[in-house]
Amino acid sequence: MSSYDYDMLVIGTGPSGQKAAVQAAKAGKRVAIVDKRDFVGGVCVNTGTIPSKTLREAVLYLSGFRERNVYGASYRVKHHITMEDLQLRCNHVTGHEIDVIKHQMYRNEIDLINGFASFSDPHTIRVESHNEERRVTAAHTVIAVGTSPTMPESIPFMQDRIFTSDGLLQMKNVPRSLAVIGAGVIGIEYASIFAALGTRVTVIDMRSRLLGFVDEEVIGALMYHLRQQRVTIRLGERVDHIDYDESTGKVVTHLTSGKRITTDKALYSIGRTGSTSSLNLPAAGLDADSRGRLKVNELYQTAVSHIYAVGDVIGFPSLASTSMEQGRLAAAHAFGIPTNSIPELFPYGIYTIPEISMVGKNEEELTEAGIPYEIGKAHYREISRGQIIGDQIGMLKLIFGLEDHRLLGVHIIGEGASELIHIGQAVMAFGGTVEYFVNTVFNYPTLAEAYKVAALDGINRVNA
Amino acid sequence: MSSYDYDMLVIGTGPSGQKAAVQAAKAGKRVAIVDKRDFVGGVCVNTGTIPSKTLREAVLYLSGFRERNVYGASYRVKHHITMEDLQLRCNHVTGHEIDVIKHQMYRNEIDLINGFASFSDPHTIRVESHNEERRVTAAHTVIAVGTSPTMPESIPFMQDRIFTSDGLLQMKNVPRSLAVIGAGVIGIEYASIFAALGTRVTVIDMRSRLLGFVDEEVIGALMYHLRQQRVTIRLGERVDHIDYDESTGKVVTHLTSGKRITTDKALYSIGRTGSTSSLNLPAAGLDADSRGRLKVNELYQTAVSHIYAVGDVIGFPSLASTSMEQGRLAAAHAFGIPTNSIPELFPYGIYTIPEISMVGKNEEELTEAGIPYEIGKAHYREISRGQIIGDQIGMLKLIFGLEDHRLLGVHIIGEGASELIHIGQAVMAFGGTVEYFVNTVFNYPTLAEAYKVAALDGINRVNA
Repeated sequence: MSSYDYDMLVIGTGPSGQKAAVQAAKAGKRVAIVDKRDFVGGVCVNTGTIPSKTLREAVLYLSGFRERNVYGASYRVKHHITMEDLQLRCNHVTGHEIDVIKHQMYRNEIDLINGFASFSDPHTIRVESHNEERRVTAAHTVIAVGTSPTMPESIPFMQDRIFTSDGLLQMKNVPRSLAVIGAGVIGIEYASIFAALGTRVTVIDMRSRLLGFVDEEVIGALMYHLRQQRVTIRLGERVDHIDYDESTGKVVTHLTSGKRITTDKALYSIGRTGSTSSLNLPAAGLDADSRGRLKVNELYQTAVSHIYAVGDVIGFPSLASTSMEQGRLAAAHAFGIPTNSIPELFPYGIYTIPEISMVGKNEEELTEAGIPYEIGKAHYREISRGQIIGDQIGMLKLIFGLEDHRLLGVHIIGEGASELIHIGQAVMAFGGTVEYFVNTVFNYPTLAEAYKVAALDGINRVNA
Repeated sequence: MSSYDYDMLVIGTGPSGQKAAVQAAKAGKRVAIVDKRDFVGGVCVNTGTIPSKTLREAVLYLSGFRERNVYGASYRVKHHITMEDLQLRCNHVTGHEIDVIKHQMYRNEIDLINGFASFSDPHTIRVESHNEERRVTAAHTVIAVGTSPTMPESIPFMQDRIFTSDGLLQMKNVPRSLAVIGAGVIGIEYASIFAALGTRVTVIDMRSRLLGFVDEEVIGALMYHLRQQRVTIRLGERVDHIDYDESTGKVVTHLTSGKRITTDKALYSIGRTGSTSSLNLPAAGLDADSRGRLKVNELYQTAVSHIYAVGDVIGFPSLASTSMEQGRLAAAHAFGIPTNSIPELFPYGIYTIPEISMVGKNEEELTEAGIPYEIGKAHYREISRGQIIGDQIGMLKLIFGLEDHRLLGVHIIGEGASELIHIGQAVMAFGGTVEYFVNTVFNYPTLAEAYKVAALDGINRVNA
C-alpha cells in the first residue's frame, strides 16, 4: 500500500479529467478529483461544447433551418426566437450532464473535492475551499484544468455587448448583427449558428484561410454556404481596436486596414489561455508557457514524469473527444494498463451549420507527402435521403490510394457528418479499400449511402 | 455480336430493376428497361419506401415529435396537420427521385420502354403500350416487377375509408382513429407514423409477436413506446370481417374473438402479391406461386437460367436496399462480372418511430445455434448527444462472442438507427472485436458514442 493519500489525484472535472479518474478507478486505484467550481464538467459541460451544441440544435429546430428547402426560405417554427428559448434547452441538458458525471464519480468511488488546487511539492496538493484548506498527497497527478478565453486588456469587454464565448449564453437577446473576431473552431461555430438565426454576421481573422487543418474543398463549401447565409468573411484582417458607441448602442470594430464594422454585439474568440496560473507550478518543478499551457511528451507526461497534463491545457486539438482519450491514456500509462490508441484515426467534428467532420488525411497533406491518391465524391442531393431531409449542401469525399485503393481519408460536410464519419473510420482502422463500400449493402434511404455513391465515383475516376 | 436486340432486358424500374440495368450498362452491354407506368421508380418511389419515409420525416417535424422531451408533451409545430401538408413534401421528393432515375438511365444509355411486358417465348418479350405493340428479344431477362398489396374480395375496400398502403397517401385528412390490419413492416411503420400524429391506432395481427426477425428486446421496446403513444396492439387476433357503417361514417373491424374495433379508417396491410399475372410466364417456361411470386436460386436465376428475378417479386426481405443488391448481383452473374457480396452483413432498417436497425445475428438466433455470447448495451439517455436531441428512447445493443469477443450483431432502436448501424457493419465485415469500440475515439457529442458505452458495458459483463 502506497503511503500517499491517493494513487491518483486529478485536477479538473472536464472530459479529460473525468476519463483519467474513471480509468484509474476501474483499475482499482484510490482516486480523487478536484474542481474549483461548485459544479463538475468543466468548460465542456458548462460554457463550451455541451451548451454550444445544444444551442445549435435548438437553433436548427426553432429557425426551421433544416426544413427551408422543403417549406421555403422564409420558413421558421418560431418567428421571434429569444435567447430565453435557446437557454431553456441548454439548462435542461447541462443540468442532466452534471448529474451524469457526479453519478459516474460516485459509482466509481472517486472522491470529489471542491476547492482551488495548488502544488506544495511534486506529490502534495493544497486544496482551498471557502473556509478550509487541506493537503492531499498523491502518487500521480493529472492536470486537466482546461483553459479560459484570452481577454486582452486592449479589448473593452462589456457584458451583453463585447464578450467572449463564456459570456455568449448570457446574452439577453438575439443580436441583429454580430462581429466574430477570431475564426477558430469556436468563432466559426457560433458565426454559423447566429447566421442560421438570421443575425448578420461578420467574421474577422488575421489568417488567410479558415480552419487550416480542414480539407480545402470542405472549407470552400463552408464559406460558400456561410455567405449564402449573409455572413461576411474578412480574412487577412487585424483588429486595431474596438469601441462601444454610447449614443447608438453599437459596437464598432476598427480594422488595421481602415475598415469599420458596426454591429449590435461582438464575440471576441481569439485564443484561450491555460488555467494554470493558480496551480503554483514551480512547487512541482513545472512551468507553463506564455499562454498558460503545459508541454507533454507522447505519453502525456509533463517534465515531472509522475505528473500528467491532458485536455485543452496542452493545446491542439482541444476537442472533448480527444481530451477524453488523453485522460484515459494518461491514467492507463500511470498504472501500466495496456492500451491501443491510434491517433491517426482520431476524428474531428466541427459543429458549424452545416456540420463538418473528417478522419485521416486530406488532399493537401497527401500531395505534400507525395502520396498518389484518387478521390470519390457524393453530394447529398444525389441520394434519396438527402432529398427527403432537404439537404442541398451535403458532400462526402473519400480519398484512397491510387494503387492499392486503401482508404486514406474521409471528409464530410452536411447533416450528420459527425456521426457518418465513424463508418469510414472503422474501414480505415482495418485497412479497408474503397471497394468495401461498393460491396456493402446500406440501408435505404440513408445518408450513409453517400459512401457507396462516392466509392463508385472514385472507381470511375480511376478507370476513366 | 449477339443476334438479340438487347443483351439484357429488365422488366420494372424499381430499385432492383434499376441496379440490374445500370450494372449491365456499365459493363458495356446493350440494355433496355420496360415499365408499365408512365413514370419510373416502381413502388419504392411512387407509393412505397420514398413516400412513406418522406411522410415520416414530415410527421416527425410537423408534430414536433423529436422535441417533445425538451419543450413538453403537447408541443407541436403545427396544431392542425393536414394530409396536404404531408403530401406536399412527398410530391417534392418523389418528383425529384423520378428525375434522378431517368437521368441515370439516360446517362448509361439504357433504353426506357413504356408499356406492358409479357413473354412470347423465353427470349422474346412483347411490349404493349397505348396504340402500339412491339417485340423485343434479349439474351437475358431480369424480372423486377415488384408486388402490389393483396386485396382479398372479402374486404370491402373503399377509397379514403378502407384501403391498402397504395391508397394511404391519397387520404383526405388525418384520421382521429385508424385500424391497421397486418403488422408487417409496412403496417407497423404506418401505425407508428400515425400514432406520432396523434391518431388513435389499433394494430391487429394474427401472429403472436411483431416482426419475428427482429431482436426480442428491441421489439419489446418498440411495443412499449408505441403503447406510450396510445397504440393498442392486438396480437393473436384474426379479422372476421370489416363493415362500413353509413350512419356513423365509421369502419368497424370484427375479430373472430368477438371484439369490435370502431375507427375512422382502416389500413389493410396483410400480404403483397407479385405483379406477375400479366407476364405470360408459361411462354417463358416459368410459373409463379399462389402469391404471384417467383422462386430463384442463390444467383437469382429462375427455373430458366437466363431469366433472373429480383426484388419484392421473390419475397423476403423486400427492402429497397437488398433489392438493389439483388439486381446488381443478377446482372453481374449474367455477364460473368465478379462480385463480392456478403448477405450475412446486409443491414435491416425499419422506419418506425422510433427507428429500428440491425445487422448480424440476434440473441435468439445465437442461443438456438448454441453459440455463447455476451451483450453490451447503451441507452441514448446515458450519452450527451441523446440528451441534446432529447431522445429518451434510444438503445444500442452489441452482441459479441464470449471467448473471442468478435462482434456478431448490432441492434439499435432510436434516432439515427438506420445510419449508425453501418459502423457496426463495417467492424463486423473486417472481423473486429468489441475492443475496437473501446480503443476508438468518437466525435463528441454524437450518438455513435453509444458504441463505446455499450462496448464498455459488455466488457464489464464479461469481467464481472
